[in-house]
Amino acid sequence: MASARVSPFANRIAALRADMRDAGWDGLLITHLPNIRYVTAFAGTAGAAILTANRCTLVVDFRYATSGREVIASHPDGKADLVLVDRTYDETLSDLLKQLGAQQIGIEGASMTVSRFLRLSAALAPAGSAAGTTVLVPTDRVVERRRAVKDEFEIETLRVAADRLSHVARQMPALVREGRSELEVAADIDAAIRAAGFERPAFETIVASGPNSARPHGRPGPRRLVAGDGVVLDFGGVYDGYCVDLTRTLHLGAPSSELQRLAGAVREAHAAAVAAVRPGVRPSEIDRAARDVLTRHGLGEAFGHGTGHGLGLEVHEDPRISKLPGALPDDPVRPGMVFTIEPGAYVEGVGGVRIEDDVLVTEDGCEVLTDVPIES
Amino acid sequence: MASARVSPFANRIAALRADMRDAGWDGLLITHLPNIRYVTAFAGTAGAAILTANRCTLVVDFRYATSGREVIASHPDGKADLVLVDRTYDETLSDLLKQLGAQQIGIEGASMTVSRFLRLSAALAPAGSAAGTTVLVPTDRVVERRRAVKDEFEIETLRVAADRLSHVARQMPALVREGRSELEVAADIDAAIRAAGFERPAFETIVASGPNSARPHGRPGPRRLVAGDGVVLDFGGVYDGYCVDLTRTLHLGAPSSELQRLAGAVREAHAAAVAAVRPGVRPSEIDRAARDVLTRHGLGEAFGHGTGHGLGLEVHEDPRISKLPGALPDDPVRPGMVFTIEPGAYVEGVGGVRIEDDVLVTEDGCEVLTDVPIES
Repeated sequence: MASARVSPFANRIAALRADMRDAGWDGLLITHLPNIRYVTAFAGTAGAAILTANRCTLVVDFRYATSGREVIASHPDGKADLVLVDRTYDETLSDLLKQLGAQQIGIEGASMTVSRFLRLSAALAPAGSAAGTTVLVPTDRVVERRRAVKDEFEIETLRVAADRLSHVARQMPALVREGRSELEVAADIDAAIRAAGFERPAFETIVASGPNSARPHGRPGPRRLVAGDGVVLDFGGVYDGYCVDLTRTLHLGAPSSELQRLAGAVREAHAAAVAAVRPGVRPSEIDRAARDVLTRHGLGEAFGHGTGHGLGLEVHEDPRISKLPGALPDDPVRPGMVFTIEPGAYVEGVGGVRIEDDVLVTEDGCEVLTDVPIES
Repeated sequence: MASARVSPFANRIAALRADMRDAGWDGLLITHLPNIRYVTAFAGTAGAAILTANRCTLVVDFRYATSGREVIASHPDGKADLVLVDRTYDETLSDLLKQLGAQQIGIEGASMTVSRFLRLSAALAPAGSAAGTTVLVPTDRVVERRRAVKDEFEIETLRVAADRLSHVARQMPALVREGRSELEVAADIDAAIRAAGFERPAFETIVASGPNSARPHGRPGPRRLVAGDGVVLDFGGVYDGYCVDLTRTLHLGAPSSELQRLAGAVREAHAAAVAAVRPGVRPSEIDRAARDVLTRHGLGEAFGHGTGHGLGLEVHEDPRISKLPGALPDDPVRPGMVFTIEPGAYVEGVGGVRIEDDVLVTEDGCEVLTDVPIES
């Protein structure tokens, strides 16, 4: 069990070293916490890692001295070491980078702040210093791109997590009852998530009932459920660090005919998007499969968010399954990617419906990891 | 009630406009979510605001169209408007900034990522473009500095929140019992936090028992409590957006003599730090008051974190009450600041003790907002 947990790290580090060589970086300063965890298994709330061609250095502060030592001791690479922060992270990091004597150190531009970049750069190249100092090179989503394709360890973890979340979802009809408040239902869902073996909910559980369901991300409030309500239930769990995410829309009694129409269209859009997932298809094409169905039903405007997002050490990660990639590449999906499919339709005065499952891209299509009937 | 909630925003915006004038910025692009909430009351999970000398523009995406409109409609300034994102936030923001025709726009360097800064800067000054384009100027903690001193509205909110959290803390002796697991106790604390009227826990509740208590930030696990355990309980709640935070260390039966010694020293350090809080004193001096006590007891090395942190829309904000300010200024504390006082001592093989209360700096000292007996 222990070896199964540790073995992937050597492969991940080797893949990143290949990326570094290709780009001409002498080192990569990893500061995004999920990326640190991906590379070292360290799961604290603060830390950094420096990866070079032949070493992996984990930097933590006093609070994590013990867990940092445990991580390093079990590191399969053998060439990993731990450095404890003396005064501040930035002082320790710039000292370590100076000692490396390297020329080009990639930094994680997608997460490092401008202030920190300016502070570290100034420490590495004080005004008036000679040439030959270390240069910080902004890079973008280097580790994230690797993380987008899950390894065997991650797929197994996500599979177990999706099973457990499906178990939670099957309890929904018992929790969603007339007279209960959204907040009460949300608290019960959170308790069910923990009881199912999750470390914690993956995000703030959404229970959006009646008119509130017309807001895609309404927070649960004191509103009590009444007959005729549609109730959007969107919740997730973190299992051994990995996030899964699921949405069902339940109806208390007979829904209005407009709400029925929404539910039918979303169900059809969800099926179309799942059917579109296979290696080589672009995220925007998967999104279009769902969007075209809703547009055909006159609900194109009512579907104002993307069709899905990657799942892993973060609850929203690459790939983004959306109309417009924006800053994110629309690269074709590959086997081993895991993401949500969650079309929805929201109409003020009518309500909202969303259906969300988690899928794994396989060699010839996809496998739906979550397994719950679609109530609507 | 509604007017009491809305009135502070005009004052906050006026103060920030004074900061902008002093620094020579034509506008301030606010992208850190708690800062957006501080200025506009908008509390979504994505958004941006642009503040100029005579307008305040809130930018949100489709998901928040309704709540964004509500925020703007109730804005006391009257000169606030809402813009919905069309394709991506960055495209909408750079279009808006171009339309302003302003020269110097401050950005929030402490939260904006390097990638976003490079992307926005490139959009505003495409390669080969003429002079006269908008320049993004990294600024650091402009809104955060204002937020560090709470206004009357915030103090009232934090006072109510601290009362409610004290009510939760008084339930601890009933929850911490032999045979229960850390995870079970943590789940009960979270339920008590919600039952006390909080929106949610302010962070992942810490229940660290027996040997686990030697780790300042141990996550609750399956370990079951046994007689002789010390149990560190650190939890917080978010009330109307504002965070409070409290720690008590309970003992199941008689603690070991070493643990008793730790508890006595931490109790003394806590009292010394609270006594040191008054306008004009530096955060590092408050920290030293606690640290000197622990050092005198031979526990200087056992106290590896700061003495406290500011509380407000974030659970960790300015001022930081620590030995070394690092990137943060050690400016004297001022009336209206609210922060934690939380010395601790952690010794492997013995265990750990932490005591945390929330204090408000008054004209001539401080008021302890939390109100719970110190069990130790």
